[in-house]
Amino acid sequence: MEYMARKLLSIKIFDDEHKKKWKKTLIDNDFEVLCVSQFTLYNTWKGNKPDFHLAMPSEHSKEFYENFIEMLRSKYKPEKVKDGIFGAYMQVDLQNDGPVTLELESPAKTEKPSKKDQSAHVNKTTEEAGDILERQS
Amino acid sequence: MEYMARKLLSIKIFDDEHKKKWKKTLIDNDFEVLCVSQFTLYNTWKGNKPDFHLAMPSEHSKEFYENFIEMLRSKYKPEKVKDGIFGAYMQVDLQNDGPVTLELESPAKTEKPSKKDQSAHVNKTTEEAGDILERQS
Repeated sequence: MEYMARKLLSIKIFDDEHKKKWKKTLIDNDFEVLCVSQFTLYNTWKGNKPDFHLAMPSEHSKEFYENFIEMLRSKYKPEKVKDGIFGAYMQVDLQNDGPVTLELESPAKTEKPSKKDQSAHVNKTTEEAGDILERQS
Repeated sequence: MEYMARKLLSIKIFDDEHKKKWKKTLIDNDFEVLCVSQFTLYNTWKGNKPDFHLAMPSEHSKEFYENFIEMLRSKYKPEKVKDGIFGAYMQVDLQNDGPVTLELESPAKTEKPSKKDQSAHVNKTTEEAGDILERQS
């Protein structure tokens, strides 16, 4: 978890002032982060149906996710880290800039070498457009 | 490629009329598909910078992508399959419904057992919101 929080704040996915790509972090730009928990990213396929048995069970994952958000806030500015409502059905409105979507995975834990520990998709969005439109629990 | 086109049209990612999840395909619903080519999905990380050397070189990938779109159109209704401009810098506006993002990968070719052949992200979007706002080549 510490790896993911540190990486998310350290990866250079923004242009510098000379429009050179992959030069600046979100901290360099004083940007906000919108985190949206999404267990569907951990899917496998069972025939034509998505299967989520590899994802962390919901009784553990809410606390895990909340700890992750807190860690991110403690490493950056708390007010810059926004999130959705865990487990809620939401409409997430985003404008993917590029489009750029990058996959970030934490290294597997030593006790479970065959599994990923945590997985995230990083979408570059325009400043105003990343937003959660509706919240329904 | 044939695998990816067939799978994309066969996967059951929509609710049925009783709101049961993962029951209907996009064909069942007569929905549109918005395909956006995105080599950044094939990233690895070199320290804090994304690295794309595993992605297909652009001199081959444009034709590859165009063939994929044509295959998708031939297997479904041509007018239902929309796409972006290959290699262009675009702002892709989407409203992710759920949010649901699923990863779909074609099996590795036998001659290159360690590599994925093709990778795609499937985002469930609301009917109106998947759109490309700007196109700049």
